[in-house]
Amino acid sequence: MAKDKRVEQITDMEVDFAQWFTDVCTKAELVDYSGIKGCFILRPYGYAIWENIQQILDGMFKRDGHENVSMPMLIPESLLQKEKDHVEGFAPECAWVTVGGSEELPERLCVRPTSETLFCDHWSHVVHSWRDLPMLYNQWCSVLRWEKTTRPFLRGREFLWQEGHTLHATEEEARKETLQQLEVYADLCENFLAMPVIRGNKTDKEKFAGAVNTYTIECMMHDHKALQSGTSHFFGDGFARQFDITFTDKDNQQKYPFQTSWGLSTRIIGGIIMTHGDNSGLVLPPRIAPVQVIVVPVAMHKPGVLDKARELYEQLKAAGVRVKIDDSDNSLGWKCAQYEMKGVPLRVELGPKDIENGVCMAVRRDNGEKVPVALSELNEKIPALLDAVQQGLFDKAKQNLDGHIFEAHSVEEARDLQSAHGGFIKTMWCGDLACELQMKEQAGMSSRCIPFEQEHLDDVCACCGKPAKHMIYWGVAY
Amino acid sequence: MAKDKRVEQITDMEVDFAQWFTDVCTKAELVDYSGIKGCFILRPYGYAIWENIQQILDGMFKRDGHENVSMPMLIPESLLQKEKDHVEGFAPECAWVTVGGSEELPERLCVRPTSETLFCDHWSHVVHSWRDLPMLYNQWCSVLRWEKTTRPFLRGREFLWQEGHTLHATEEEARKETLQQLEVYADLCENFLAMPVIRGNKTDKEKFAGAVNTYTIECMMHDHKALQSGTSHFFGDGFARQFDITFTDKDNQQKYPFQTSWGLSTRIIGGIIMTHGDNSGLVLPPRIAPVQVIVVPVAMHKPGVLDKARELYEQLKAAGVRVKIDDSDNSLGWKCAQYEMKGVPLRVELGPKDIENGVCMAVRRDNGEKVPVALSELNEKIPALLDAVQQGLFDKAKQNLDGHIFEAHSVEEARDLQSAHGGFIKTMWCGDLACELQMKEQAGMSSRCIPFEQEHLDDVCACCGKPAKHMIYWGVAY
Repeated sequence: MAKDKRVEQITDMEVDFAQWFTDVCTKAELVDYSGIKGCFILRPYGYAIWENIQQILDGMFKRDGHENVSMPMLIPESLLQKEKDHVEGFAPECAWVTVGGSEELPERLCVRPTSETLFCDHWSHVVHSWRDLPMLYNQWCSVLRWEKTTRPFLRGREFLWQEGHTLHATEEEARKETLQQLEVYADLCENFLAMPVIRGNKTDKEKFAGAVNTYTIECMMHDHKALQSGTSHFFGDGFARQFDITFTDKDNQQKYPFQTSWGLSTRIIGGIIMTHGDNSGLVLPPRIAPVQVIVVPVAMHKPGVLDKARELYEQLKAAGVRVKIDDSDNSLGWKCAQYEMKGVPLRVELGPKDIENGVCMAVRRDNGEKVPVALSELNEKIPALLDAVQQGLFDKAKQNLDGHIFEAHSVEEARDLQSAHGGFIKTMWCGDLACELQMKEQAGMSSRCIPFEQEHLDDVCACCGKPAKHMIYWGVAY
Repeated sequence: MAKDKRVEQITDMEVDFAQWFTDVCTKAELVDYSGIKGCFILRPYGYAIWENIQQILDGMFKRDGHENVSMPMLIPESLLQKEKDHVEGFAPECAWVTVGGSEELPERLCVRPTSETLFCDHWSHVVHSWRDLPMLYNQWCSVLRWEKTTRPFLRGREFLWQEGHTLHATEEEARKETLQQLEVYADLCENFLAMPVIRGNKTDKEKFAGAVNTYTIECMMHDHKALQSGTSHFFGDGFARQFDITFTDKDNQQKYPFQTSWGLSTRIIGGIIMTHGDNSGLVLPPRIAPVQVIVVPVAMHKPGVLDKARELYEQLKAAGVRVKIDDSDNSLGWKCAQYEMKGVPLRVELGPKDIENGVCMAVRRDNGEKVPVALSELNEKIPALLDAVQQGLFDKAKQNLDGHIFEAHSVEEARDLQSAHGGFIKTMWCGDLACELQMKEQAGMSSRCIPFEQEHLDDVCACCGKPAKHMIYWGVAY
């Protein structure tokens, strides 16, 4: 079908993937640029995706006993400096409030880049006894990191996220929490966003500033680059010692509690775009699509068509489908292109012929397939088709991931595989920073993670030939 | 029942209302103080109240076609200055980011005190045609206003709120929206928070910086002071002209659209506390209480008690009641005092005798009444009791409001009534600023609103004796 000229073309992803991405972000009306570099506006359609993600995650957090709180957005410089590694990691990218009203402030206040220090300060007031533990907190907010290079969703100076912060009486319990929350993120990605993940440990170089361990889920984008999609950190009792958080345990001893934090941001929407999108625009998994079905009447002005289309719309709405109807006077071609651009999983067309035959035509966004659906079977068939789109998107993404993991036994081989195919290169690794830096310098790849699912590829490190400690994934990352 | 010593006493409200308020905020675990004056931490129990308010309002906003968005938290100084009245109102209390990373910024960035300027800037990019209107936007966020005097909920340098911003093709439609959203706030207050309101117009002196009209709902607190609880503003096309937002109307003419904004903040939680609270602590209306029913087993270690209490808990939970059970080893006295402090609307006690008799004892937080409830009738009687508490709180608050509105015909009379009884003093008013200032100076009262429900009390202004234009309410406000 000829596209209406009012729907602007986007750059082909094969021509310029970065430009394609930006085109999708703006043409699908997900974001707009504000007057400040790197501070993006989430428009209603973009924000609605985030709201759906929020609802899913928030339900999982609460199911597991977490409670939401609200911490201030400002951190006094002295508070940020209490944990040495932490401040070293974040201070270079802080934005500072120095003036309040008409007065110079006595101490600079950082707009939170993350809130560990605020939670610790609060806990030092309210935690006294083992009865107060665990503290299982989360907050939904935005944070500021003064980045040099910025892109919608992928790297913003301001971005929306959730940050979970928990405090436990024992190391074992805190470690369990860290892994449990990583699994929550994996669940979100795989079962709602149709994004298969690789779970693993970050290396010391790549871990969060101040953490003992950082766990990650890594996804592979359409261009075979990696996206770190969610992280969960175990802090030991390091922050607790710096912030003097102690509790009286059941044995009457004063002890330091153990801490975790975990975060997932609007960056994941960038991941959805780059995992599922195509040259017609965005493609959304039905489980997080703000609009799952768009009803488009065909030959709308023929008698009975609009009434029947509205009836169909009402029926789907009553069946719990997130559905809209476009009965505007825009052309059919414009409508089709528009909802393709916006990634609506199913378009349901209904014209005079269809009505005669007691069917409508469901068009799948993921593969273009046209499926006639009897109007009498709508309530079963449409949800089933949405499930099929969801599964189809996951399968395609899984195929992309599995087909782009390559094994290498030297830095040269790793480099050649990366430049030929992209993707994740798996090698053995001795665990030394020097080898990690060598891989970065000579093959242009950072370590993605030491996966939980280890394989024995070799006895020795691919970089230095010393005895290997782990299998590790390398890649080019966003 | 003797209170356990671990539950600390709070100041009596008759002794020191301000201290009573602060005690409730901290002892009911609603807030904690952060290291920055006026930036409060909302603890889980306080935040859960806000989440319930959010859910109610968000549902109403969406029912009426509004969409959520996310705007940046920073506003370039030049953008804030585009609307003259607006910047004059807000610049004195802005907090300024002047350093990003290690660099001095070329232009100061204000942490949003409100976001009209950001919405206008965005609309100037995306609004072109009458087809793009109305824009019905809302955002949930926090804002910063660098106040000198601060108190939990009532006046914070940072506070959580929602700010709705809408743009319309006609003045009529925008005015309708402004009033419709005020009615949404009144609905929330009266039907969910059990807070009766007075709806009216703000005077020019008291209206929002840059607005043509500001509408308000005013509530009366327990100490007979006023709380402005939600406001809705009509801007005309003033901002649109300054930000060059135009659209092509159906008649092919370029026009300026008309704008509104409306906001309600966590301040309303301060209102809930000061409307319903008593000397035992917080009292929460059931419709927004995070915990509506607390189940407290009595003589918990007697055989069968705990099992039966848990059964009762499960039954109420399945019936959709927000219920918790306290089966901790804390004393019964401590538990009772604790849940009174936290304002849980119903405490359900269950002991061996009750089980024998097939009843439990429901204790109302609002009036202390003890109501035996047959276990076989739980699913009907408990929700009915919650409704009774809700209605009881509203009636008591309405009585407080109605009983503290006084009529005056001179500034002296108004002053004497205020100092004798507090409350709202209604007088006629000529509409002149001079008289408003005189009432402030001589009677210590600000104008609360020109109520929609006007009465003719007199022919002349109570202050100057010139012909009266309106009936107006005066009061001492938070």
